[in-house]
Amino acid sequence: MVTLLGHRALGDRLKTCFIDNGLMRQDEPRRIQQIFADLGVRVEILDAQDKFFAALRGVTDPEEKRDKGITEVFGKLVRECGAKVLLQGTNYTDVEETVAGIKRQHNILAQLGIDTQEAYGYKVLEPIIQLRKPAVRAMGEALGLPQELYARPPFPGLALAARVIGEVTPERVALLRAATVVVEEELQGCPAFQYMAILHEDKVTGLRDGKRDFGHQIEIRCWDSTDAVTGSPTELPFEKLRTMADRITHEVPGVVSVTYSITPKPPSCIEAV
Amino acid sequence: MVTLLGHRALGDRLKTCFIDNGLMRQDEPRRIQQIFADLGVRVEILDAQDKFFAALRGVTDPEEKRDKGITEVFGKLVRECGAKVLLQGTNYTDVEETVAGIKRQHNILAQLGIDTQEAYGYKVLEPIIQLRKPAVRAMGEALGLPQELYARPPFPGLALAARVIGEVTPERVALLRAATVVVEEELQGCPAFQYMAILHEDKVTGLRDGKRDFGHQIEIRCWDSTDAVTGSPTELPFEKLRTMADRITHEVPGVVSVTYSITPKPPSCIEAV
Repeated sequence: MVTLLGHRALGDRLKTCFIDNGLMRQDEPRRIQQIFADLGVRVEILDAQDKFFAALRGVTDPEEKRDKGITEVFGKLVRECGAKVLLQGTNYTDVEETVAGIKRQHNILAQLGIDTQEAYGYKVLEPIIQLRKPAVRAMGEALGLPQELYARPPFPGLALAARVIGEVTPERVALLRAATVVVEEELQGCPAFQYMAILHEDKVTGLRDGKRDFGHQIEIRCWDSTDAVTGSPTELPFEKLRTMADRITHEVPGVVSVTYSITPKPPSCIEAV
Repeated sequence: MVTLLGHRALGDRLKTCFIDNGLMRQDEPRRIQQIFADLGVRVEILDAQDKFFAALRGVTDPEEKRDKGITEVFGKLVRECGAKVLLQGTNYTDVEETVAGIKRQHNILAQLGIDTQEAYGYKVLEPIIQLRKPAVRAMGEALGLPQELYARPPFPGLALAARVIGEVTPERVALLRAATVVVEEELQGCPAFQYMAILHEDKVTGLRDGKRDFGHQIEIRCWDSTDAVTGSPTELPFEKLRTMADRITHEVPGVVSVTYSITPKPPSCIEAV
């Protein structure tokens, strides 16, 4: 969204990078690059997977994941690019949640009294900071973005790291990524606001080929919501839940248990981390 | 069941103890004592809560919970009672799962080559070891046990310790016990084979009174099964799931998230531990 806004305003004076932090969904970096190429915007992919995983090593606290794992590495990368100004897609819900003390979104800095020029060496411009999700989507449509981009479910700034409980390692992200493929394929086109797979740190006793298999658990969440401020679990057909559980336990190695969240927000949050 | 069998065979020569290990459901020791008093059997309650919690301190591995936490403390208590023979309600599913290497049930000893006379100082008699659950229930009815006892959902030998992921402490068991009250009240009379609440060790981000609340998660499981060998998650009405989630997050302090298991056995097991 802000890429296209920036491109309209600045043309080729805008440099667009997609930072591959190793936490994105299956094939996402290439797919995004392709979509923008079709819109006449050249996107450079910056492979920073090792840097992010190094920063996330041993980190289990959600707030620390955001601070150490994401904000700091990201800030350093932007500075190394030589950028003077960063266009950032912060929206109003990010601001509200951070100010209310619910969770510190990785992109909220000025609102917490952080001077990015001083702290990171560049300025931040946030053209859509007054909009919540429905307005952001209306704007995407008006700008001529493909529906695939503006209508898709929200995806957190922490990316898949927001959906790994406990330590974020390449192996655990790969496992969650495979479960995410199943959930997104099965729920694509469903009218829910957002849906996701979450990898738990807890292990549970399972049974494979007649033998004990102490394995992983995946939690599925699917939300009815308009703005992410409040939400209800979607009443999915039971058959659909069973299909997702069967596919995940067969397609994702080591997963023996799948659950579905039945809690509204509040007291749950949309994401687990 | 075996208490009543023993009482028929031995009359007052049978000594009946209910070992309160601190892991039973709300009011269970008194309730059991009352039911047997009505049947003319005197049950002595032996308070061993401290001993069990001391043995379980710091133990997180499921198999170790069974060995150290339950089998050893239990064996010692029986010996201290001066018992020469223990009547044990082992059933055929316990044997099958242990022999298959799925999980070592706390009451399976002889089948693993353990001589209880040598190891614990008493003999074990297992009058219903050839029966699976449906036959056990038919026998309970034939013996004139109240339906409340023979028709109720199975409850694991590890008791609530089988439903606490991670360390079993008095505080964590109290929390799970409160969630169990809700699940059993709401699902009482439903034709499912078994239902339960499970306390996770993972914590998730929640929202309480507009502020971040990093809290507990409870998983609900409800099984369609005839013999616990295989099982399917019960297709409960969504409204019922929502009611349980709402009650648990309001009535059990610190719980911000409730999930429902949608995985069959296999690859899941009935219990999590």
